[in-house]
Amino acid sequence: MEPRKPYDIDSLTDVALRVFAERGYDGASMDDVARAAGITKASIYHHVSGKEALLERGLGRALDALFAILDEPAAREGTAASRLRHIVERVADTTLHLLPELTVLFRIHGTSKSERNAVDRRRAFDRVVTEIITQAQRDGDVRGDIDPRLTARLIFGMSNSVVEWYRSGNLTRGAIARAVVAIAFDGITSR
Amino acid sequence: MEPRKPYDIDSLTDVALRVFAERGYDGASMDDVARAAGITKASIYHHVSGKEALLERGLGRALDALFAILDEPAAREGTAASRLRHIVERVADTTLHLLPELTVLFRIHGTSKSERNAVDRRRAFDRVVTEIITQAQRDGDVRGDIDPRLTARLIFGMSNSVVEWYRSGNLTRGAIARAVVAIAFDGITSR
Repeated sequence: MEPRKPYDIDSLTDVALRVFAERGYDGASMDDVARAAGITKASIYHHVSGKEALLERGLGRALDALFAILDEPAAREGTAASRLRHIVERVADTTLHLLPELTVLFRIHGTSKSERNAVDRRRAFDRVVTEIITQAQRDGDVRGDIDPRLTARLIFGMSNSVVEWYRSGNLTRGAIARAVVAIAFDGITSR
Repeated sequence: MEPRKPYDIDSLTDVALRVFAERGYDGASMDDVARAAGITKASIYHHVSGKEALLERGLGRALDALFAILDEPAAREGTAASRLRHIVERVADTTLHLLPELTVLFRIHGTSKSERNAVDRRRAFDRVVTEIITQAQRDGDVRGDIDPRLTARLIFGMSNSVVEWYRSGNLTRGAIARAVVAIAFDGITSR
Protein backbone atom coordinates (compact mmCIF):
# COMPACT_ATOMS: atom_id res chain seq x y z
CA MET A 1 0.00 0.00 0.00
CA GLU A 2 1.27 3.44 -0.93
CA PRO A 3 1.90 5.62 2.10
CA ARG A 4 -0.72 8.37 2.25
CA LYS A 5 0.44 11.76 1.02
CA PRO A 6 0.77 14.16 3.96
CA TYR A 7 -2.32 16.29 4.45
CA ASP A 8 -2.34 19.92 3.50
CA ILE A 9 -5.02 22.46 4.30
CA ASP A 10 -7.01 21.62 1.14
CA SER A 11 -7.11 17.87 1.61
CA LEU A 12 -7.96 18.34 5.31
CA THR A 13 -10.83 20.60 4.26
CA ASP A 14 -12.05 17.82 1.95
CA VAL A 15 -12.16 15.38 4.87
CA ALA A 16 -13.80 17.88 7.22
CA LEU A 17 -16.54 18.74 4.72
CA ARG A 18 -17.45 15.10 4.25
CA VAL A 19 -17.73 14.78 8.04
CA PHE A 20 -19.79 17.99 8.33
CA ALA A 21 -22.10 16.92 5.49
CA GLU A 22 -22.69 13.55 7.14
CA ARG A 23 -23.10 14.55 10.81
CA GLY A 24 -24.10 18.18 10.44
CA TYR A 25 -21.62 20.93 11.31
CA ASP A 26 -22.96 21.34 14.86
CA GLY A 27 -22.97 17.60 15.48
CA ALA A 28 -19.41 17.07 14.17
CA SER A 29 -16.37 17.43 16.44
CA MET A 30 -12.69 17.87 15.64
CA ASP A 31 -12.30 14.34 17.03
CA ASP A 32 -14.61 13.13 14.26
CA VAL A 33 -12.53 14.99 11.67
CA ALA A 34 -9.28 13.56 13.07
CA ARG A 35 -10.75 10.04 13.05
CA ALA A 36 -11.94 10.41 9.45
CA ALA A 37 -8.51 11.71 8.42
CA GLY A 38 -6.69 8.99 10.35
CA ILE A 39 -4.41 11.48 12.09
CA THR A 40 -4.30 13.09 15.54
CA LYS A 41 -6.20 16.23 16.44
CA ALA A 42 -2.84 17.87 17.19
CA SER A 43 -1.72 17.29 13.57
CA ILE A 44 -4.88 19.01 12.34
CA TYR A 45 -4.24 22.03 14.56
CA HIS A 46 -0.83 22.23 12.91
CA HIS A 47 -2.67 23.21 9.68
CA VAL A 48 -5.75 25.03 10.85
CA SER A 49 -6.95 26.99 13.89
CA GLY A 50 -10.12 24.97 14.41
CA LYS A 51 -13.48 23.70 13.19
CA GLU A 52 -14.80 27.09 12.14
CA ALA A 53 -11.74 27.72 9.95
CA LEU A 54 -12.47 24.46 8.10
CA LEU A 55 -16.10 25.46 7.70
CA GLU A 56 -15.08 28.88 6.42
CA ARG A 57 -12.86 27.34 3.72
CA GLY A 58 -15.64 24.96 2.68
CA LEU A 59 -18.26 27.71 2.48
CA GLY A 60 -15.79 29.83 0.53
CA ARG A 61 -15.34 27.05 -2.05
CA ALA A 62 -19.12 26.63 -2.41
CA LEU A 63 -19.83 30.33 -2.82
CA ASP A 64 -16.85 30.98 -5.11
CA ALA A 65 -18.14 28.21 -7.38
CA LEU A 66 -21.68 29.68 -7.42
CA PHE A 67 -20.46 33.20 -8.17
CA ALA A 68 -18.10 31.89 -10.88
CA ILE A 69 -21.21 30.64 -12.72
CA LEU A 70 -22.55 34.19 -12.90
CA ASP A 71 -19.33 35.23 -14.70
CA GLU A 72 -19.61 32.59 -17.41
CA PRO A 73 -20.35 34.06 -20.86
CA ALA A 74 -23.71 32.24 -21.17
CA ALA A 75 -24.78 33.74 -17.84
CA ARG A 76 -23.94 37.26 -19.03
CA GLU A 77 -24.94 37.32 -22.69
CA GLY A 78 -28.25 36.70 -24.42
CA THR A 79 -31.82 37.05 -23.18
CA ALA A 80 -32.58 36.97 -19.48
CA ALA A 81 -34.43 33.67 -19.98
CA SER A 82 -31.44 32.01 -21.68
CA ARG A 83 -29.06 33.36 -19.01
CA LEU A 84 -31.39 31.96 -16.34
CA ARG A 85 -31.53 28.57 -18.04
CA HIS A 86 -27.72 28.41 -18.10
CA ILE A 87 -27.46 29.43 -14.44
CA VAL A 88 -30.03 26.86 -13.27
CA GLU A 89 -28.30 24.03 -15.14
CA ARG A 90 -24.83 25.03 -13.93
CA VAL A 91 -25.97 25.45 -10.31
CA ALA A 92 -27.50 21.96 -10.34
CA ASP A 93 -24.34 20.51 -11.91
CA THR A 94 -22.06 22.37 -9.47
CA THR A 95 -24.15 21.19 -6.51
CA LEU A 96 -23.48 17.58 -7.53
CA HIS A 97 -19.83 18.28 -8.35
CA LEU A 98 -19.10 19.94 -4.98
CA LEU A 99 -21.62 17.89 -3.02
CA PRO A 100 -20.12 18.15 0.52
CA GLU A 101 -19.44 21.88 0.13
CA LEU A 102 -22.94 22.68 -1.11
CA THR A 103 -24.59 20.31 1.38
CA VAL A 104 -22.92 22.22 4.21
CA LEU A 105 -23.76 25.60 2.66
CA PHE A 106 -27.45 24.76 2.25
CA ARG A 107 -27.77 23.71 5.90
CA ILE A 108 -26.06 26.57 7.75
CA HIS A 109 -28.18 28.90 9.80
CA GLY A 110 -25.95 31.93 10.28
CA THR A 111 -25.00 31.40 13.92
CA SER A 112 -21.23 32.14 13.65
CA LYS A 113 -19.37 34.90 11.79
CA SER A 114 -18.36 32.60 8.90
CA GLU A 115 -21.94 31.39 8.60
CA ARG A 116 -23.35 34.91 8.61
CA ASN A 117 -20.90 35.93 5.87
CA ALA A 118 -21.95 32.92 3.81
CA VAL A 119 -25.64 33.68 4.33
CA ASP A 120 -24.98 37.26 3.13
CA ARG A 121 -23.18 36.00 0.00
CA ARG A 122 -26.01 33.54 -0.72
CA ARG A 123 -28.52 36.37 -0.45
CA ALA A 124 -26.45 38.44 -2.88
CA PHE A 125 -26.48 35.49 -5.32
CA ASP A 126 -30.26 35.14 -4.92
CA ARG A 127 -30.73 38.86 -5.61
CA VAL A 128 -28.83 38.60 -8.90
CA VAL A 129 -30.96 35.64 -9.98
CA THR A 130 -34.21 37.31 -8.87
CA GLU A 131 -33.25 40.34 -10.99
CA ILE A 132 -32.69 38.12 -14.03
CA ILE A 133 -36.09 36.45 -13.46
CA THR A 134 -37.74 39.88 -13.18
CA GLN A 135 -36.17 40.86 -16.52
CA ALA A 136 -37.28 37.58 -18.15
CA GLN A 137 -40.83 38.29 -16.94
CA ARG A 138 -40.66 41.80 -18.48
CA ASP A 139 -39.45 40.23 -21.75
CA GLY A 140 -42.51 37.96 -21.68
CA ASP A 141 -40.37 34.81 -21.62
CA VAL A 142 -41.13 33.76 -18.02
CA ARG A 143 -44.64 33.60 -16.56
CA GLY A 144 -45.51 36.74 -14.64
CA ASP A 145 -48.11 35.23 -12.29
CA ILE A 146 -45.55 34.03 -9.71
CA ASP A 147 -43.49 36.46 -7.64
CA PRO A 148 -39.89 36.45 -9.01
CA ARG A 149 -38.39 35.86 -5.56
CA LEU A 150 -40.74 32.91 -4.95
CA THR A 151 -39.87 31.61 -8.42
CA ALA A 152 -36.14 31.75 -7.56
CA ARG A 153 -36.69 30.04 -4.22
CA LEU A 154 -38.73 27.18 -5.67
CA ILE A 155 -36.39 26.53 -8.61
CA PHE A 156 -33.28 26.50 -6.44
CA GLY A 157 -35.19 24.61 -3.75
CA MET A 158 -35.71 21.87 -6.32
CA SER A 159 -32.06 22.00 -7.42
CA ASN A 160 -30.64 22.18 -3.88
CA SER A 161 -32.73 19.20 -2.76
CA VAL A 162 -30.43 16.82 -4.64
CA VAL A 163 -28.01 17.00 -1.69
CA GLU A 164 -30.59 15.08 0.36
CA TRP A 165 -30.50 11.94 -1.77
CA TYR A 166 -27.74 12.01 -4.40
CA ARG A 167 -25.06 9.32 -4.17
CA SER A 168 -22.94 8.78 -7.26
CA GLY A 169 -24.78 5.97 -8.98
CA ASN A 170 -27.01 5.33 -11.95
CA LEU A 171 -27.96 8.91 -12.74
CA THR A 172 -25.21 11.12 -14.12
CA ARG A 173 -24.71 14.69 -12.94
CA GLY A 174 -25.61 15.92 -16.40
CA ALA A 175 -28.87 13.93 -16.53
CA ILE A 176 -29.98 15.31 -13.16
CA ALA A 177 -29.04 18.89 -14.07
CA ARG A 178 -30.97 18.58 -17.36
CA ALA A 179 -34.03 17.19 -15.51
CA VAL A 180 -33.95 20.16 -13.11
CA VAL A 181 -33.90 22.58 -16.06
CA ALA A 182 -36.60 20.63 -17.93
CA ILE A 183 -39.02 20.67 -14.98
CA ALA A 184 -38.19 24.24 -13.95
CA PHE A 185 -38.80 25.65 -17.44
CA ASP A 186 -41.41 23.30 -18.93
CA GLY A 187 -42.91 21.29 -16.07
CA ILE A 188 -43.75 17.63 -16.09
CA THR A 189 -46.86 17.86 -18.27
CA SER A 190 -46.53 16.16 -21.69
CA ARG A 191 -46.62 18.58 -24.64
CA MET B 1 -52.03 38.15 32.18
CA GLU B 2 -53.92 34.87 31.99
CA PRO B 3 -52.17 32.04 33.78
CA ARG B 4 -50.86 29.57 31.22
CA LYS B 5 -52.89 26.40 30.79
CA PRO B 6 -50.98 23.40 32.19
CA TYR B 7 -49.06 21.54 29.52
CA ASP B 8 -50.22 18.20 28.24
CA ILE B 9 -48.30 15.84 26.00
CA ASP B 10 -49.61 17.52 22.82
CA SER B 11 -48.76 21.08 23.79
CA LEU B 12 -45.34 19.94 25.02
CA THR B 13 -44.77 18.25 21.67
CA ASP B 14 -45.64 21.58 19.98
CA VAL B 15 -42.94 23.35 21.99
CA ALA B 16 -40.37 20.60 21.44
CA LEU B 17 -40.92 20.57 17.67
CA ARG B 18 -40.37 24.31 17.43
CA VAL B 19 -37.10 23.86 19.36
CA PHE B 20 -36.03 20.90 17.19
CA ALA B 21 -36.88 22.78 13.98
CA GLU B 22 -34.83 25.77 15.11
CA ARG B 23 -31.74 24.07 16.57
CA GLY B 24 -31.86 20.74 14.82
CA TYR B 25 -32.89 17.62 16.73
CA ASP B 26 -29.29 16.63 17.53
CA GLY B 27 -28.37 20.14 18.62
CA ALA B 28 -31.42 20.56 20.89
CA SER B 29 -31.38 19.40 24.53
CA MET B 30 -34.22 18.75 26.96
CA ASP B 31 -32.91 21.85 28.78
CA ASP B 32 -33.68 23.86 25.63
CA VAL B 33 -37.19 22.36 25.51
CA ALA B 34 -37.75 23.12 29.21
CA ARG B 35 -36.54 26.69 28.75
CA ALA B 36 -38.81 27.22 25.72
CA ALA B 37 -41.76 25.78 27.65
CA GLY B 38 -40.96 27.85 30.74
CA ILE B 39 -41.13 24.82 33.03
CA THR B 40 -38.59 22.54 34.68
CA LYS B 41 -37.11 19.50 33.01
CA ALA B 42 -38.62 17.39 35.80
CA SER B 43 -42.12 18.58 34.84
CA ILE B 44 -41.49 17.51 31.25
CA TYR B 45 -40.39 14.05 32.35
CA HIS B 46 -43.73 13.83 34.18
CA HIS B 47 -45.38 13.73 30.72
CA VAL B 48 -42.86 12.04 28.48
CA SER B 49 -39.92 9.65 28.77
CA GLY B 50 -37.44 11.82 26.89
CA LYS B 51 -36.36 13.67 23.78
CA GLU B 52 -36.83 10.74 21.43
CA ALA B 53 -40.44 10.25 22.57
CA LEU B 54 -41.15 13.88 21.65
CA LEU B 55 -39.48 13.38 18.27
CA GLU B 56 -41.49 10.21 17.69
CA ARG B 57 -44.78 12.03 18.32
CA GLY B 58 -43.75 14.85 15.99
CA LEU B 59 -42.70 12.49 13.20
CA GLY B 60 -45.94 10.58 13.68
CA ARG B 61 -47.97 13.76 13.20
CA ALA B 62 -46.04 14.66 10.02
CA LEU B 63 -46.38 11.21 8.46
CA ASP B 64 -50.01 10.74 9.48
CA ALA B 65 -50.81 14.05 7.76
CA LEU B 66 -48.96 13.00 4.57
CA PHE B 67 -50.65 9.60 4.42
CA ALA B 68 -54.06 11.17 5.11
CA ILE B 69 -53.61 13.11 1.84
CA LEU B 70 -53.37 9.83 -0.09
CA ASP B 71 -56.80 8.86 1.32
CA GLU B 72 -58.54 12.02 0.14
CA PRO B 73 -61.05 11.38 -2.67
CA ALA B 74 -59.17 13.59 -5.17
CA ALA B 75 -56.02 11.53 -4.52
CA ARG B 76 -57.86 8.28 -5.22
CA GLU B 77 -60.24 9.09 -8.06
CA GLY B 78 -59.65 10.41 -11.56
CA THR B 79 -56.62 10.18 -13.83
CA ALA B 80 -53.19 9.57 -12.38
CA ALA B 81 -52.17 13.09 -13.48
CA SER B 82 -55.09 14.73 -11.66
CA ARG B 83 -54.45 12.62 -8.54
CA LEU B 84 -50.79 13.66 -8.66
CA ARG B 85 -51.72 17.32 -9.02
CA HIS B 86 -53.95 17.08 -5.94
CA ILE B 87 -51.27 15.31 -3.90
CA VAL B 88 -48.55 17.84 -4.82
CA GLU B 89 -50.77 20.79 -3.87
CA ARG B 90 -51.88 19.20 -0.59
CA VAL B 91 -48.35 18.15 0.40
CA ALA B 92 -47.12 21.73 -0.14
CA ASP B 93 -50.05 23.12 1.85
CA THR B 94 -49.59 20.57 4.65
CA THR B 95 -45.86 21.32 4.83
CA LEU B 96 -46.68 24.97 5.57
CA HIS B 97 -49.55 24.08 7.92
CA LEU B 98 -47.42 21.68 10.02
CA LEU B 99 -44.15 23.54 9.47
CA PRO B 100 -42.19 22.40 12.58
CA GLU B 101 -43.31 18.76 12.16
CA LEU B 102 -42.37 18.62 8.48
CA THR B 103 -39.14 20.59 9.01
CA VAL B 104 -38.02 17.98 11.52
CA LEU B 105 -39.15 15.09 9.28
CA PHE B 106 -37.25 16.42 6.24
CA ARG B 107 -34.02 16.71 8.23
CA ILE B 108 -33.79 13.37 10.02
CA HIS B 109 -31.17 10.88 8.95
CA GLY B 110 -32.41 7.61 10.41
CA THR B 111 -29.96 7.26 13.29
CA SER B 112 -32.44 6.21 16.02
CA LYS B 113 -35.31 3.71 15.95
CA SER B 114 -37.98 6.44 15.64
CA GLU B 115 -36.02 8.04 12.82
CA ARG B 116 -35.58 4.78 10.96
CA ASN B 117 -39.33 4.09 11.24
CA ALA B 118 -40.06 7.54 9.88
CA VAL B 119 -37.59 7.10 7.01
CA ASP B 120 -39.34 3.80 6.14
CA ARG B 121 -42.77 5.47 6.15
CA ARG B 122 -41.45 8.32 3.96
CA ARG B 123 -40.08 5.78 1.49
CA ALA B 124 -43.47 4.05 1.40
CA PHE B 125 -45.10 7.42 0.65
CA ASP B 126 -42.57 8.09 -2.13
CA ARG B 127 -43.25 4.66 -3.65
CA VAL B 128 -46.99 5.40 -3.87
CA VAL B 129 -46.30 8.72 -5.58
CA THR B 130 -43.70 7.22 -7.94
CA GLU B 131 -46.29 4.60 -8.95
CA ILE B 132 -48.84 7.34 -9.71
CA ILE B 133 -46.23 9.21 -11.81
CA THR B 134 -45.42 6.00 -13.71
CA GLN B 135 -49.14 5.56 -14.46
CA ALA B 136 -49.45 9.21 -15.59
CA GLN B 137 -46.51 8.65 -17.95
CA ARG B 138 -48.23 5.55 -19.38
CA ASP B 139 -51.39 7.63 -19.86
CA GLY B 140 -49.31 10.14 -21.85
CA ASP B 141 -50.17 12.96 -19.43
CA VAL B 142 -46.72 13.32 -17.84
CA ARG B 143 -43.50 13.54 -19.83
CA GLY B 144 -41.77 10.19 -20.15
CA ASP B 145 -38.21 11.46 -20.63
CA ILE B 146 -37.47 11.80 -16.90
CA ASP B 147 -37.25 8.79 -14.60
CA PRO B 148 -40.43 8.68 -12.42
CA ARG B 149 -38.45 8.39 -9.21
CA LEU B 150 -36.27 11.39 -10.14
CA THR B 151 -39.44 13.28 -11.08
CA ALA B 152 -40.92 12.56 -7.62
CA ARG B 153 -37.72 13.59 -5.87
CA LEU B 154 -37.41 16.88 -7.73
CA ILE B 155 -41.06 17.88 -7.33
CA PHE B 156 -41.10 17.12 -3.61
CA GLY B 157 -37.62 18.61 -3.28
CA MET B 158 -39.10 21.88 -4.54
CA SER B 159 -42.11 21.57 -2.23
CA ASN B 160 -40.09 20.52 0.83
CA SER B 161 -37.66 23.41 0.37
CA VAL B 162 -40.25 25.87 1.69
CA VAL B 163 -39.29 24.81 5.23
CA GLU B 164 -35.93 26.54 4.68
CA TRP B 165 -37.35 30.03 4.21
CA TYR B 166 -41.09 30.22 4.97
CA ARG B 167 -42.15 32.47 7.81
CA SER B 168 -45.84 33.42 7.97
CA GLY B 169 -45.82 36.70 6.10
CA ASN B 170 -46.88 38.20 2.81
CA LEU B 171 -47.37 34.98 0.87
CA THR B 172 -50.32 32.81 1.88
CA ARG B 173 -50.04 29.05 2.19
CA GLY B 174 -52.46 28.66 -0.71
CA ALA B 175 -50.44 30.97 -3.00
CA ILE B 176 -47.23 29.05 -2.33
CA ALA B 177 -48.89 25.65 -2.82
CA ARG B 178 -50.41 26.85 -6.12
CA ALA B 179 -46.99 28.14 -7.28
CA VAL B 180 -45.43 24.75 -6.52
CA VAL B 181 -48.11 23.00 -8.60
CA ALA B 182 -47.83 25.57 -11.42
CA ILE B 183 -44.06 25.19 -11.75
CA ALA B 184 -44.09 21.40 -11.26
CA PHE B 185 -46.70 20.82 -13.96
CA ASP B 186 -46.16 23.70 -16.40
CA GLY B 187 -42.75 25.21 -15.61
CA ILE B 188 -41.90 28.89 -15.55
CA THR B 189 -41.87 29.43 -19.34
CA SER B 190 -44.65 31.76 -20.58
CA ARG B 191 -47.22 30.03 -22.78
